[in-house]
Amino acid sequence: MTQDWNRFLSVEAKNRHPSVMKTVGGPDIISFGCGMPHSDCFPLKGLSIKYTTPDSNFKKTAIGSNEDDANSKEGASEIYQMCQYMSASGTTYFKKWTHEHIEEFHKPAFRDWDCLIQSGATLSFDQILRMICDPEIDTILAEELTYPCFLESCKPLRLKVFGVKMDADGVDVNDLDMILTNWYEDERTKKYRKPKFYYCMPFGQNPSGITMTIQRKKDLLQICQKHDILVVEDDPYFHLQLDPSAKNVPSLLKFDTDGRVLRIDSFSKMMMPGMRISVVTANNFFVKKLTMMNELSIHSAAAPSQLIVYMLMQEWRQQGFRQWIEYIQANYRRRRDIILDAFDKYLPKSLCSWNKPSSGMFLWIKLRLDKFPKLDRSEDDSEWALELEDLVYDQALKEKIYLTKGHWFMIDDMVMAGFRATYASGEYEDLYEGSRRLGIAIRHVHENLYEK
Amino acid sequence: MTQDWNRFLSVEAKNRHPSVMKTVGGPDIISFGCGMPHSDCFPLKGLSIKYTTPDSNFKKTAIGSNEDDANSKEGASEIYQMCQYMSASGTTYFKKWTHEHIEEFHKPAFRDWDCLIQSGATLSFDQILRMICDPEIDTILAEELTYPCFLESCKPLRLKVFGVKMDADGVDVNDLDMILTNWYEDERTKKYRKPKFYYCMPFGQNPSGITMTIQRKKDLLQICQKHDILVVEDDPYFHLQLDPSAKNVPSLLKFDTDGRVLRIDSFSKMMMPGMRISVVTANNFFVKKLTMMNELSIHSAAAPSQLIVYMLMQEWRQQGFRQWIEYIQANYRRRRDIILDAFDKYLPKSLCSWNKPSSGMFLWIKLRLDKFPKLDRSEDDSEWALELEDLVYDQALKEKIYLTKGHWFMIDDMVMAGFRATYASGEYEDLYEGSRRLGIAIRHVHENLYEK
Repeated sequence: MTQDWNRFLSVEAKNRHPSVMKTVGGPDIISFGCGMPHSDCFPLKGLSIKYTTPDSNFKKTAIGSNEDDANSKEGASEIYQMCQYMSASGTTYFKKWTHEHIEEFHKPAFRDWDCLIQSGATLSFDQILRMICDPEIDTILAEELTYPCFLESCKPLRLKVFGVKMDADGVDVNDLDMILTNWYEDERTKKYRKPKFYYCMPFGQNPSGITMTIQRKKDLLQICQKHDILVVEDDPYFHLQLDPSAKNVPSLLKFDTDGRVLRIDSFSKMMMPGMRISVVTANNFFVKKLTMMNELSIHSAAAPSQLIVYMLMQEWRQQGFRQWIEYIQANYRRRRDIILDAFDKYLPKSLCSWNKPSSGMFLWIKLRLDKFPKLDRSEDDSEWALELEDLVYDQALKEKIYLTKGHWFMIDDMVMAGFRATYASGEYEDLYEGSRRLGIAIRHVHENLYEK
Repeated sequence: MTQDWNRFLSVEAKNRHPSVMKTVGGPDIISFGCGMPHSDCFPLKGLSIKYTTPDSNFKKTAIGSNEDDANSKEGASEIYQMCQYMSASGTTYFKKWTHEHIEEFHKPAFRDWDCLIQSGATLSFDQILRMICDPEIDTILAEELTYPCFLESCKPLRLKVFGVKMDADGVDVNDLDMILTNWYEDERTKKYRKPKFYYCMPFGQNPSGITMTIQRKKDLLQICQKHDILVVEDDPYFHLQLDPSAKNVPSLLKFDTDGRVLRIDSFSKMMMPGMRISVVTANNFFVKKLTMMNELSIHSAAAPSQLIVYMLMQEWRQQGFRQWIEYIQANYRRRRDIILDAFDKYLPKSLCSWNKPSSGMFLWIKLRLDKFPKLDRSEDDSEWALELEDLVYDQALKEKIYLTKGHWFMIDDMVMAGFRATYASGEYEDLYEGSRRLGIAIRHVHENLYEK
């Protein structure tokens, strides 16, 4: 007998559904879809363990072996710490390194800050959501195109997200100011509780690829101060600054004298996502609460992950780490330049446009809606935009090129049809070939519509 | 200006407080407090990484070195999987091993089961709570003395926990039956929603050390079936079966033909807590929901942890793993026997009693309340019990022996004064010396009360 287990679910669980983000794979399919780092950008190439053996009744040790040229790290205290329970704020050595790293790269303006090691940015924003928002009651502000996993984390908690307009410099602070000023007058917002925070991705925003300028960051903080709201700065692409225009832009932390920024750093894009390490930097009050949440959930990021990253830092030293950052930047810059060159060659500029991201892994392709004939003139413009996006998406898949649909990133329906493309994980020839196929797909849809 | 940040907190976060469990350390203090594994029971003694070097612009590799006798594991696909994002149900190789392990040791009776890798039992029961319970509305049943971290996970969600009586064989199923049968008549329960699950620790229960018998497990499942509730079987001590009486007792999964058991396995006690690995085994429906929660929180346990445990299993093979289990059992059995010998020597049997646990890390010391003169005869019995417990706790600390207070484990006030003592992490001489000090403390409190 198959039971219906739904009767045991919480409202949260009932509102939890599979991700809208689909990954399409298969023979010959080229993917511009998932933002996975390229394997050239992983520094770890082997692992060896020294373990106690059954033959000696676990008194003597042996080595897990595939090669002959490796040596074993056996700083007794680190290995013991890696095996044993650890503090909810992280292992001593890694916590210390992280604190120095935050100080060196972000220079927080607020004095009473601290940081906390967690297991990945997705967990971190889920914990922050639960720390700040009451399910079904609270609301959140975010860029009008934003990261689907963030939206999907809000859904089970029934938190309504309101979109704020963006331009090439980042969030439109006037729009943000207007929304908050008119909150209890505007029909759209007045029945909801005023938001407690604004969620943003300041570098190489996912999906738009936009990097917020210094001036915009200062303006953003001023508006947040005016309306007394917090900022969650989710910043996995900070170290993927590809152009000089991005290179001198600091974190919001540097301008935040109030302590209203909760920053999430991640090791996923600049090192290895498999480590599951993120760092939350915020004022002490929030870090303490999040530490209590760590105690009753993950404890901390897994100790082997903390040790491996720490060992890398010890081996490379500060100078080597800076070289690593330059190395991955050069790697992704090259890939970005290749996809831009390929788009320039293969995409019909009369039918679509795209941006040149100064950091991160993504660029945003927008279809020129006015160049595609609208078949049903009575149809709503935003419905038509979605329909067109679907047509191109499906045709692209037929041409064996996979992209991420723009509508997966929209908070509300928009009169916009677009795609997020990543250059992060594709090989050079695939970046060219994928672009060629995409060009064919867009032209095909366009011609087909005219024939109808 | 110091701000009051409380205005930004959710109700959940406002109800989150530091743990009641205190750890007391210091020079010369012997601890019978924390249930940390002994370092002899950690199989990992060294770690080595092969990493790309700055000098070669990250083309060539080097080894993090402390010794000369190590070899590097470099199964290309495992190392790549360890670096890259992974599936929310775990890495392919570890998921496969785990599935076989569950099948071999627990033999689930329900056909449509699956398992899921998460990062530690504490996270797992937090996720299960959120999957099943609506904050402020749902209720939970648990053993009347239970694990404080579980109670503290319920608190921020405002889930009321009701205690079920226990005896030497585990949960008192008649009491469980009565509570559920009379739920909507009993003054104590009738205003609350009927519980959706019963939470238990079947082996070496924390704090009582009790192991549930086979018959009791069958009876428990029958009652849960009768009232249509689930069972959460939190079982970190399964592999710490110290006596033959525990050795042939299987998991609840083996008798669960309905699929109503959600079992949590942990690698923390039988291997290394620093790995942060737990496994939830349940019917497919719940595993799918929990996998969605993984996707939007931890993704999975960190990949290095999964790889390290997997490498150990490959090196040891099945036979070696079974030897490992016997080795840690022998280790903890020896420690348990020593503390029992020490208690026998040093504790006043006229003033207290204790049990001999057949599995796990803990035993439970009960003060004989009737042997201590009650100073204020008008005082409530349960208040007096707490007061006496405090007196012994404080006196023990003066004698430099630390124990975990019984009241930290009580769901409701009980007319009971007791302590949880662990033999897991103490050295042999400390187990004796700590017991001697405890004996002095108990006698001292007793004499002092008579002098008053």
